[in-house]
Amino acid sequence: MNSFGRIFRVQIFGESHGEVVGVLIDGCPAGIPISPAIFQEDLTRRKGGMQKGTTPRSEEDIPLLKSGVFASTTTGAPLAILFENKNTRSGDYEKMKQIPRPGHADFVVHQKFGGHEDYRGGGHFSGRLTTCLVAAGVVAKKLLGSIEIRATLKEVAGEPDSASGIEKAISKQDSVGGIVECVVKGLPIGLGEPFFDSVESLIAHAIFSIPAVRGIEFGSGFAAARMYGSEHNDSIVSMDGTTATNHAGGVVGGLTNGNELLFRVAIKPTSSTPQEQKSLNTTTGKQEVFTVKGRHDLCIALRVPVVVEAVAAMVLADLLLLEQKILRVNP
Amino acid sequence: MNSFGRIFRVQIFGESHGEVVGVLIDGCPAGIPISPAIFQEDLTRRKGGMQKGTTPRSEEDIPLLKSGVFASTTTGAPLAILFENKNTRSGDYEKMKQIPRPGHADFVVHQKFGGHEDYRGGGHFSGRLTTCLVAAGVVAKKLLGSIEIRATLKEVAGEPDSASGIEKAISKQDSVGGIVECVVKGLPIGLGEPFFDSVESLIAHAIFSIPAVRGIEFGSGFAAARMYGSEHNDSIVSMDGTTATNHAGGVVGGLTNGNELLFRVAIKPTSSTPQEQKSLNTTTGKQEVFTVKGRHDLCIALRVPVVVEAVAAMVLADLLLLEQKILRVNP
Amino acid sequence: MNSFGRIFRVQIFGESHGEVVGVLIDGCPAGIPISPAIFQEDLTRRKGGMQKGTTPRSEEDIPLLKSGVFASTTTGAPLAILFENKNTRSGDYEKMKQIPRPGHADFVVHQKFGGHEDYRGGGHFSGRLTTCLVAAGVVAKKLLGSIEIRATLKEVAGEPDSASGIEKAISKQDSVGGIVECVVKGLPIGLGEPFFDSVESLIAHAIFSIPAVRGIEFGSGFAAARMYGSEHNDSIVSMDGTTATNHAGGVVGGLTNGNELLFRVAIKPTSSTPQEQKSLNTTTGKQEVFTVKGRHDLCIALRVPVVVEAVAAMVLADLLLLEQKILRVNP
Amino acid sequence: MNSFGRIFRVQIFGESHGEVVGVLIDGCPAGIPISPAIFQEDLTRRKGGMQKGTTPRSEEDIPLLKSGVFASTTTGAPLAILFENKNTRSGDYEKMKQIPRPGHADFVVHQKFGGHEDYRGGGHFSGRLTTCLVAAGVVAKKLLGSIEIRATLKEVAGEPDSASGIEKAISKQDSVGGIVECVVKGLPIGLGEPFFDSVESLIAHAIFSIPAVRGIEFGSGFAAARMYGSEHNDSIVSMDGTTATNHAGGVVGGLTNGNELLFRVAIKPTSSTPQEQKSLNTTTGKQEVFTVKGRHDLCIALRVPVVVEAVAAMVLADLLLLEQKILRVNP
Repeated sequence: MNSFGRIFRVQIFGESHGEVVGVLIDGCPAGIPISPAIFQEDLTRRKGGMQKGTTPRSEEDIPLLKSGVFASTTTGAPLAILFENKNTRSGDYEKMKQIPRPGHADFVVHQKFGGHEDYRGGGHFSGRLTTCLVAAGVVAKKLLGSIEIRATLKEVAGEPDSASGIEKAISKQDSVGGIVECVVKGLPIGLGEPFFDSVESLIAHAIFSIPAVRGIEFGSGFAAARMYGSEHNDSIVSMDGTTATNHAGGVVGGLTNGNELLFRVAIKPTSSTPQEQKSLNTTTGKQEVFTVKGRHDLCIALRVPVVVEAVAAMVLADLLLLEQKILRVNP
Repeated sequence: MNSFGRIFRVQIFGESHGEVVGVLIDGCPAGIPISPAIFQEDLTRRKGGMQKGTTPRSEEDIPLLKSGVFASTTTGAPLAILFENKNTRSGDYEKMKQIPRPGHADFVVHQKFGGHEDYRGGGHFSGRLTTCLVAAGVVAKKLLGSIEIRATLKEVAGEPDSASGIEKAISKQDSVGGIVECVVKGLPIGLGEPFFDSVESLIAHAIFSIPAVRGIEFGSGFAAARMYGSEHNDSIVSMDGTTATNHAGGVVGGLTNGNELLFRVAIKPTSSTPQEQKSLNTTTGKQEVFTVKGRHDLCIALRVPVVVEAVAAMVLADLLLLEQKILRVNP
Repeated sequence: MNSFGRIFRVQIFGESHGEVVGVLIDGCPAGIPISPAIFQEDLTRRKGGMQKGTTPRSEEDIPLLKSGVFASTTTGAPLAILFENKNTRSGDYEKMKQIPRPGHADFVVHQKFGGHEDYRGGGHFSGRLTTCLVAAGVVAKKLLGSIEIRATLKEVAGEPDSASGIEKAISKQDSVGGIVECVVKGLPIGLGEPFFDSVESLIAHAIFSIPAVRGIEFGSGFAAARMYGSEHNDSIVSMDGTTATNHAGGVVGGLTNGNELLFRVAIKPTSSTPQEQKSLNTTTGKQEVFTVKGRHDLCIALRVPVVVEAVAAMVLADLLLLEQKILRVNP
Repeated sequence: MNSFGRIFRVQIFGESHGEVVGVLIDGCPAGIPISPAIFQEDLTRRKGGMQKGTTPRSEEDIPLLKSGVFASTTTGAPLAILFENKNTRSGDYEKMKQIPRPGHADFVVHQKFGGHEDYRGGGHFSGRLTTCLVAAGVVAKKLLGSIEIRATLKEVAGEPDSASGIEKAISKQDSVGGIVECVVKGLPIGLGEPFFDSVESLIAHAIFSIPAVRGIEFGSGFAAARMYGSEHNDSIVSMDGTTATNHAGGVVGGLTNGNELLFRVAIKPTSSTPQEQKSLNTTTGKQEVFTVKGRHDLCIALRVPVVVEAVAAMVLADLLLLEQKILRVNP
């Protein structure tokens, strides 16, 4: 299923080199002020071409509000937002059609859909679709009120300083990965369910739909596996649930505990590297050396923080609606 | 929502110290041979009291097949399986009621449910419920045919040798965590959807409903964030999708790629440690030193592999039904 | 899918001649007083053997509250309720196995489930399961507060006086049908969605899972098709939405309008009639004359009103939760 | 929730006088030939301005295939189809804003969405949205292969001859209703589930999202409530499930039985009648006589058959996919 959420329900559609990409949000409360301008900051954060190490493909990314908005306010009806694809160069992909790119979904998509897929630029399996996630996130953030959500890049190519990491990529002429950390402040206690809709479950579900994500951990995460219980347990210090430490990352028993929600996401190196690679020529059935054409990021992780924020915001807005902490109609 | 799956839909219920715990499976194909005996191996793997470092609470764990089975075969109607709780000692918990155990959900559950929760042994928020996950997994595995799924403990308390890890816990008189790795062989190409039901999304969703899980990673996982693209990309070598390496852990673009599906799960140290701890006395509003009573595992990770297998089997059975790789009626 | 509802989610299971039938309710708010006693009135209304024209099979119908209840109050965890089947005489059905009963699901169930179905008494396809619907309805009604819901039998065998209708059935020695009308008072304005979760959509969906239902109409219903617009339109007379007439049955545009919600349900004659009938002997492939054995109602419609109330209560409780008119935690 | 279907999942969006209306179909199999041309026949059947008694508002209704189609074939990715609104005259509605039209959703929508709704032409609560249902139906019909589905108008204003019914409306200068009958041939045995996804449940659910529907009945429907069991039961005559009569309308126990699926739908008279009506002026709080402006149908029932076909096709395509009778990838 290509949708997510129980009340604030998000579905994205479109293809990298098709006419548009878009997002349909069902269940958005009525009465939320909304206009193209509120999307710009986050769309700009996501956009390529702004930083060293990101793709020169640059779309204008103007959100076209097609339904669900009247007098610059959400109406409560389904909200459709489109983005036109203008800056496409499909010829680059046509040439590579018979050589599936390693690390990309080309080969498996071809198998899954019986060869009917739009293969240009990955079609529906493209980072271009994260524009839609960001747009959904902007709407979700409007619902979160005083809850603050912030994702930052903690590491690029193993370097805590992202500029150093990018330099490594440029000097090696190879793509690199990174680690994104997300912190949410101001959440109420008790969001989530133990089986199967824990807060970790829902966030992990949404996060793993961001291309290039390979792992997620909450609080101490994998390091917790090497701690003693007496070290790891967070001692509750006050009646609002505040704990002395936050090894749990703000979630116990699948529920938010009133402390900062904290999770980290591992981003693999961009699949499209400038390096020569080998892959199968599906016409000849033999491996070939080839170089990926098209315009690509050396480090996609640079553009991921705002997408992580967006999907976290979607998940949390949905849970807050479900737990009646956000009203169905904004007064 | 306390259910999971679109076609093979699993819901668990019950409380640690209530009369029963149980699982209801909707959408299980008709014609699957099923009897109490087929559950025993996996239930025994999950059960405490068998290994050093696990709890002495020992339930018989006899699955009571209450509906959906006729003549030892699934009928296609909803399948209900109950397990009676017999070996409960609720007095242990009554005493601790006003001091929420650190690392446990006691405090947040109390807040979330307005004090109406069954607090004995964690109530519905208990590892006891994993019995039901294991039972659902046994049924799911029957659907998987030649697909093999195996989870093993790769690390306890930081030691690759789990016996050494347990010795550390015993000598320290403290609880410890561990890392579980799961490998699935024989999956077809193309299970999953890019947004939002990627294979990683669905597996992560289900895995994070297992108590004590703090992280999940696929293939190279967090290590991928420190690799170059040319290292990380898996080169396709043959027309069945086999790749030379498996850094992707068998998933690209959110879809299975025909190679081994591989993921690792971080398990935190058991929250109930024999060590003295501090927590808030919610009556006095002050912190107190206390020691957790009741019977507990020093290392819950020892019992988790079979639960990881179970939820992975559930997810995969559901996807295989959705993709029409498993028949709705077993002939 | 054998479940219904988005927040107050109900799933029923079990077989007519199996060990139990049961219901699992997920998403029930915490803090609702609940005990076996509150079920008795509605279960008695549903039960056979109390009125002329109903089956002599009589079950005790004692609700076994297996989970989700603590200290006679809902906890917010999934609520499981079982009913044991004690008064079964399966031998009656064994004999008829190769002759599918006309009007029953025997033949199609056999085809659908490849012969793996529990055929005794219709198995999962049995009116016995309505016990579970009634139980879910009792819980749902507890959530409705001052909202009143009442279904009554308006017609039996075409007679407005149900006793006369039953006399016709007895004198003809044939089964008969009837019409049930349901009225709900006190609903707020605005429950429902236009596409696709209109109030009519959701109620009709749930009502058609009651065995023997053949039609449903809201307000003037089928008669509306023969009215002029100027007759049918309900004129709004006051700011609370009250209309001068109620041809709409309390729903416009798929939403409740603050007037009485009113719908009628057509119940077919009981499939098991005392009359001789013809059906196919599936062993010989030829038609045979036969008489249905077992214990059956002459007019199942007599027992349906409380079931109609129950499913309407389920639907409305779910919508009220969704629209935040019922709290997730009862204070 | 504004979506419908488990595998073939349809969501519609847009407003009567907004920029577009549209439909997003998730889960459509890959490999289905699709082009704007295949929509024309059904869109023309739905369109106003072609018959006596229908509105002179005429939209071009050109389907814009925005995603999920490549080389005139579905790709398996979400399919988005837009229709532009060009022929709108919103001024008509602006004037009436403070007088909610009787029989319309104006008043309740205003209450539900806190005054944030797009009130022009009913906004999202408009018959204009049925364009999207028809489009989804066209795609669904492409999946049905040899299954034939046909809805026809059986009655207008109580007249079996629809021309006579329309003449009544014209001579009375009042709007009228009608009855639509739908027949589906060639369905396999066993689609549906007893609780809660019976075939009747699902079809009724979808049908009641068509504006102006007041009732639905299957087979003998309400007349069945006045029949004897021996009359109503359909005798099975052959091993393919064929019955001598079809009082059940092709559904027993909630499942298709291999005979023709037959249901009838009651359509109320168009709410917008040329007659003078009374309604509340929500500014003054007093009733006023007024006449509905704008362009409207005297008998909306004339345009409904193709919409009934469409939603039936959606439901059946979804069930056929679920039961693995339609492939996820069209070869």
